[in-house]
Amino acid sequence: MKTHQFSNVPSHIGIIPDGNRRWAEARGLPRHAGYDYGLAPALELVEACTELGVRELTFYGFTQDNTKRAAVQREAFQRACVEAVRLLAERDAAVLVVGNTHSPMFPSELLAYAGRRRRFGRGSIKVNLLVNYSWQWDLSQALMSSAARPLSLNDRHLSSLGSAAISRIDLVLRWGGRRRLSGFLPIQTVYSDFYILDDLWPDYDRAHLDDALAWYQLQDVTLGG
Amino acid sequence: MKTHQFSNVPSHIGIIPDGNRRWAEARGLPRHAGYDYGLAPALELVEACTELGVRELTFYGFTQDNTKRAAVQREAFQRACVEAVRLLAERDAAVLVVGNTHSPMFPSELLAYAGRRRRFGRGSIKVNLLVNYSWQWDLSQALMSSAARPLSLNDRHLSSLGSAAISRIDLVLRWGGRRRLSGFLPIQTVYSDFYILDDLWPDYDRAHLDDALAWYQLQDVTLGG
Repeated sequence: MKTHQFSNVPSHIGIIPDGNRRWAEARGLPRHAGYDYGLAPALELVEACTELGVRELTFYGFTQDNTKRAAVQREAFQRACVEAVRLLAERDAAVLVVGNTHSPMFPSELLAYAGRRRRFGRGSIKVNLLVNYSWQWDLSQALMSSAARPLSLNDRHLSSLGSAAISRIDLVLRWGGRRRLSGFLPIQTVYSDFYILDDLWPDYDRAHLDDALAWYQLQDVTLGG
Repeated sequence: MKTHQFSNVPSHIGIIPDGNRRWAEARGLPRHAGYDYGLAPALELVEACTELGVRELTFYGFTQDNTKRAAVQREAFQRACVEAVRLLAERDAAVLVVGNTHSPMFPSELLAYAGRRRRFGRGSIKVNLLVNYSWQWDLSQALMSSAARPLSLNDRHLSSLGSAAISRIDLVLRWGGRRRLSGFLPIQTVYSDFYILDDLWPDYDRAHLDDALAWYQLQDVTLGG
């Protein structure tokens, strides 16, 4: 483990890996081909964050809205999510998939990761992947849990609690230049700091993370106080 | 009414008028003195937005978290909110105050604005002011409304519906340099574009709004699609 220059490392970073289609288009590739090029960056980022002592990472995989796109695109990002989890399972990570499993859009290969967090290797960093997620679904799950509060939460399956197993996010990093959340975990991001990279996600570079963390050192985190 | 250069004017702009205390401090004034200097900018902004054809504006007044600050500060921002509504009522605006009215922190002068939208003058722009607001309160109200869905919503008092009367926000403008929502309307902001001004709120200038709208023209709004 390397030592590093950051005294205040965020516990939990949210990742919006946007720009895969624009990246492919700029290279004369079909738009759906971009997703494959987002896998290696994701693994690099997990490794860098593990080294830095980040305790939890949440990636915005795909949403229920996204599944309305052309089938060739939908299949490409579904495949990329399945492949991402397969690759993480060969490394050190505690993996949880969060999303609406009661839909044919949810890849069946990921069902085993949706109910409980699975630890691989030393499992030193929690990695969450949002798959067939929607903020409406998430809030309605929170609502039903609350309506069912008299029942013990222990009796309920984790996947029926929306994103309740995902903690508050300190810092959201978004690639691809857009300055918006696009429905990413509205409850966990209420106090998050946002850092936008104009680079497209397949062009991820370690310097992006270092720049974001250097900026984060200067923020006065008040949690609304 | 002036014509203007923007083809795509956001329907609803959220305003986070941050930096009042830092502004006062920089001038050797007591920190709480800054809030008074935020009133004239708010009225100028309402007027500019009315001219541009913006249909709704929501100002982040103060939150339940904010009320834990020193009493002299709390009293200053409470007074500023009361005064803001009094000044708006002398102009053209349809005013609604949203927040937890069941608390001594909610100024009694504003109770008459919390139950229903009140139209002044031509009432050509909706202006919402969050007063003693909290995102937890807001989501729990949404939750209770939903649990009570079999009852007609017409039977319920507007203030018991949290922020349900506030529409989706297209663009959030935050003064004071911080890149975060700080609990501002988590449901209405899921798809919002964020534009941050490093200037402190009392230094509001019409050029800030024009710069933000010029930037907004370049955004590809997808609403999560």
